[in-house]
Amino acid sequence: MFEKVEKIVENAGEILINNLKGNYNTYSKKDKHDIVTEIDMKIQDYLKNELMKLTPNAGFLAEERGNTDKPKENNYWVIDPIDGTVNFSRGFPENCISVSYVENDEPVFGLIDSPQMSIKFLSIKGKGLFINGEKQTPRWSKTLCDSMITIGANKKEMANFINILSDKVMRIRLIGSAAIMGAYVASGYADAFIFSKSNSWDIAAAYSMIKEVGGEVYNFDGEDADIFSKRIIFSSKYIKDDLIKLIKKLEE
Amino acid sequence: MFEKVEKIVENAGEILINNLKGNYNTYSKKDKHDIVTEIDMKIQDYLKNELMKLTPNAGFLAEERGNTDKPKENNYWVIDPIDGTVNFSRGFPENCISVSYVENDEPVFGLIDSPQMSIKFLSIKGKGLFINGEKQTPRWSKTLCDSMITIGANKKEMANFINILSDKVMRIRLIGSAAIMGAYVASGYADAFIFSKSNSWDIAAAYSMIKEVGGEVYNFDGEDADIFSKRIIFSSKYIKDDLIKLIKKLEE
Repeated sequence: MFEKVEKIVENAGEILINNLKGNYNTYSKKDKHDIVTEIDMKIQDYLKNELMKLTPNAGFLAEERGNTDKPKENNYWVIDPIDGTVNFSRGFPENCISVSYVENDEPVFGLIDSPQMSIKFLSIKGKGLFINGEKQTPRWSKTLCDSMITIGANKKEMANFINILSDKVMRIRLIGSAAIMGAYVASGYADAFIFSKSNSWDIAAAYSMIKEVGGEVYNFDGEDADIFSKRIIFSSKYIKDDLIKLIKKLEE
Repeated sequence: MFEKVEKIVENAGEILINNLKGNYNTYSKKDKHDIVTEIDMKIQDYLKNELMKLTPNAGFLAEERGNTDKPKENNYWVIDPIDGTVNFSRGFPENCISVSYVENDEPVFGLIDSPQMSIKFLSIKGKGLFINGEKQTPRWSKTLCDSMITIGANKKEMANFINILSDKVMRIRLIGSAAIMGAYVASGYADAFIFSKSNSWDIAAAYSMIKEVGGEVYNFDGEDADIFSKRIIFSSKYIKDDLIKLIKKLEE
């Protein structure tokens, strides 16, 4: 089944690429800069239609069109048609389509496809993580001070995170796509992704990836997190304790 | 001549890609996290050798091996063999090869090639900016509050920039490659790149690009900058005045 999903997402990627310079409508959601475009809708409709043909009895959870509640089915898709919509709307290449399949609340498949960057991350439970078809084993830093940290947060929290982290780590990167930053941690490109406004569709696929490579997913108190946790950290095992200590200091 | 340069840089990109998972030596420069790898050297040597065959009388300025002084020749190459070396060393895709040709202190050619992202930015004086062969016209935001800002700075300054900017702009991105962030502004993906530790090899190619599309390059006082300026801003014309006011506040 998952080979068919790859092809479906490849087609969805063509919709994305073909509309990069197009004139499409953009709508604001919670605030002026929280946007959705017609292309997000178009890609989601295409994915829903095609994926539900493969699994007629599965549930469907996605960012747009009121599909945001946890499905009552045991097995369901979790989709972000464009993760990094602001980036996409500017042509900024760090945007992607994120697709996950969840069985009994556990993501068993993750696909994060960035057509502009020509990079595709894929995980299948028990099979590992693949980048553009090649198996990936992360090589994480052993200490926080040698770590590369990525962050997703609203503006006020972002400044706080950077103030507390910048002299404790090697580098901080802000990419603007949660799915890509999560996939970068699973790939060993980064050591942690700290995300204070998570939604299941942002992180389900990356969650599957980080589990496949032996990484950690936890909330800001250091407890195991699931895809519905709102404040979530993806990291290697090496820096988990030090990171929790720092984040807790911020929360006080 | 510049078609030959494209081919040479393509070959250099293969050296980069082939060594992504390789075991190479890494050396520290000014501080522990300011690193250079054997691959930076290898790519620079290859580029120098091939480019000097094309232009035996030109000068050569590059990041590594003591080629860092301004050449005495009127025409010279400015090269960063790997811009974003820390990213490269982690496999983080946002790294690139940056090549510029300068005539009488003016960059007339820029090539920024990110082989991992499969994105190539190219500018030739009077011909415009091309992304993967396609002509690009930037569509920048008209106001600072709708702007996407990228930053390159040391850790302490980074926190200051983010504190002063975060509630004044739409989004902040930290990518970790000056050349790519500069190219993103020229492409209209971002509205500004603020860079407080610039070297000519980081920005010469992007400088050529931003000039080709009618963008601005200035120092932190708002005066025109050249490729040897240390504190430099690339931006659209729309947000230049507002950005200078903010940065000056920080400098006080």
